[in-house]
Amino acid sequence: MALGFVLALDLIGSFAFAISGATVGVRHRLDLFGVLVLAFAAATAGGIVRDAVLGATPPVALADPRYLGVAMLAAFVTFYRYGQVERLRNPVQLFDAIGLGLFAVTGAAKAIAHGVGPTGAVLLGVLSGVGGGIARDVLVAQIPAVLRRELYAVAAALGAGVVVIGDALQLPPAPLALAGASACFVLRFLAIRRGWRLPVARVDPAD
Amino acid sequence: MALGFVLALDLIGSFAFAISGATVGVRHRLDLFGVLVLAFAAATAGGIVRDAVLGATPPVALADPRYLGVAMLAAFVTFYRYGQVERLRNPVQLFDAIGLGLFAVTGAAKAIAHGVGPTGAVLLGVLSGVGGGIARDVLVAQIPAVLRRELYAVAAALGAGVVVIGDALQLPPAPLALAGASACFVLRFLAIRRGWRLPVARVDPAD
Amino acid sequence: MALGFVLALDLIGSFAFAISGATVGVRHRLDLFGVLVLAFAAATAGGIVRDAVLGATPPVALADPRYLGVAMLAAFVTFYRYGQVERLRNPVQLFDAIGLGLFAVTGAAKAIAHGVGPTGAVLLGVLSGVGGGIARDVLVAQIPAVLRRELYAVAAALGAGVVVIGDALQLPPAPLALAGASACFVLRFLAIRRGWRLPVARVDPAD
Repeated sequence: MALGFVLALDLIGSFAFAISGATVGVRHRLDLFGVLVLAFAAATAGGIVRDAVLGATPPVALADPRYLGVAMLAAFVTFYRYGQVERLRNPVQLFDAIGLGLFAVTGAAKAIAHGVGPTGAVLLGVLSGVGGGIARDVLVAQIPAVLRRELYAVAAALGAGVVVIGDALQLPPAPLALAGASACFVLRFLAIRRGWRLPVARVDPAD
Repeated sequence: MALGFVLALDLIGSFAFAISGATVGVRHRLDLFGVLVLAFAAATAGGIVRDAVLGATPPVALADPRYLGVAMLAAFVTFYRYGQVERLRNPVQLFDAIGLGLFAVTGAAKAIAHGVGPTGAVLLGVLSGVGGGIARDVLVAQIPAVLRRELYAVAAALGAGVVVIGDALQLPPAPLALAGASACFVLRFLAIRRGWRLPVARVDPAD
Repeated sequence: MALGFVLALDLIGSFAFAISGATVGVRHRLDLFGVLVLAFAAATAGGIVRDAVLGATPPVALADPRYLGVAMLAAFVTFYRYGQVERLRNPVQLFDAIGLGLFAVTGAAKAIAHGVGPTGAVLLGVLSGVGGGIARDVLVAQIPAVLRRELYAVAAALGAGVVVIGDALQLPPAPLALAGASACFVLRFLAIRRGWRLPVARVDPAD
């Protein structure tokens, strides 16, 4: 798997996440800059927290200007073409699932490269995948959708877990990353299509 | 004070914090994974932020899998036995006060060990103690209870302050940690029992 | 520009931000400690995140006790003299605009000194300027005002951008910082006075 291919997928994933952030911003009546902030936060917060926690400073999303460029593009498109973006909801979910898989896999791989053990690597893969969505929703004072959406974080954990187990078995990194991202994508895609959900605890309504 | 004893107390404290996070998750109708995220956030966010801010990367709560184990245990127990956990509210508050004291003390001690001055060490002790509760409440879009609850952060500051002052007087670390945690616990316990609160500013209702 | 002058301006800016945090805390009926937490968060969160992300640990706002002192002073004044502070709204906005300019400029300069490229330096300047206000509002479960207020983050980007461009042209740092802070202040001040705002996207009400 060529490096350029990984980068392209990473930027496509960032773009999909940025679109989701910009859409939330427009719905909450933020101005153009607020929409840009939400797009950038959704695209990069997971990676920035991952890098800060790993001591990999400065975070790549701040050091590489392409991440800001992708967020700006997504913000402008969403801001000035909101109607079309809304109608694209299915393709956006598709890109979002691709981005989730890729971020989970690269997050776990980066954690392993920094000497974090298997549990921590899975946790950081999940955090990389869901961190952006959490930042996006906290910024508009809502409960993060990733805490309730169909198997969202579970799919990220699956992708990161494939990388961690494969690394322990010394499998080659590139096909491993592709396998992890695919596993995450397929689980997330099926969960959306078939409405799979995790159980919710029974609480006595009188509580 | 043996290391094993500290670790046991630390994991008990994490478990109590995790129970509080899982309880909040169940009340907000999160699914099983969302409940686990809240349990893990409540148990570890204070320590993760403390370690990131100190440059002590990767944070121990991500590197040591027992923290995830404790959070998973708390999440499953709360999820499948919610009724019983609700009835245990007093014991949970007790464990929570123990955990608060311990986190405040270990947070301050770790800050001193990283060369942070006295004020910063007290601040990091408080942050370690209250950070988990703040993350838990922000994730469900509510004002953190620790900003309003009976002398919660004040008790953490007391525990951290005992460690910082004792360190300046070169007292031996283990009894000092125990003294700080006990002071925090006693103040918090009395505040709950007797309903002690800090004043709230008078605001003209017409404002 | 003497170092003492920069420090004085920095502490004045922190004080103005702390006043804004304390005011929000009193309005949300937090107790005295909660008000102090909001004052400290508003004054320092931007700088703490900036330092954690740059790997400049421990953050200066935790290492230097004067930041806590300034936050405590602002919290006590606001708590016990809330009526007067409310009536001072205009001077507070003035100090806040000064603080914004200074934080944007020092944030960008610190990022450059840590080897971050131009885009990242502007981003970190903006983050330093608006981070405190975001933390303040997230802690009371509200959408951050800086995402909606008149050209707030745009002014921070202008101030940081002046520093980054001037640094690329190898202009002397002190006058450059003053120019960046002034540009930010003037834009923010005019935006408040004349009610300048960025556009909000048109959304079909039926959405």
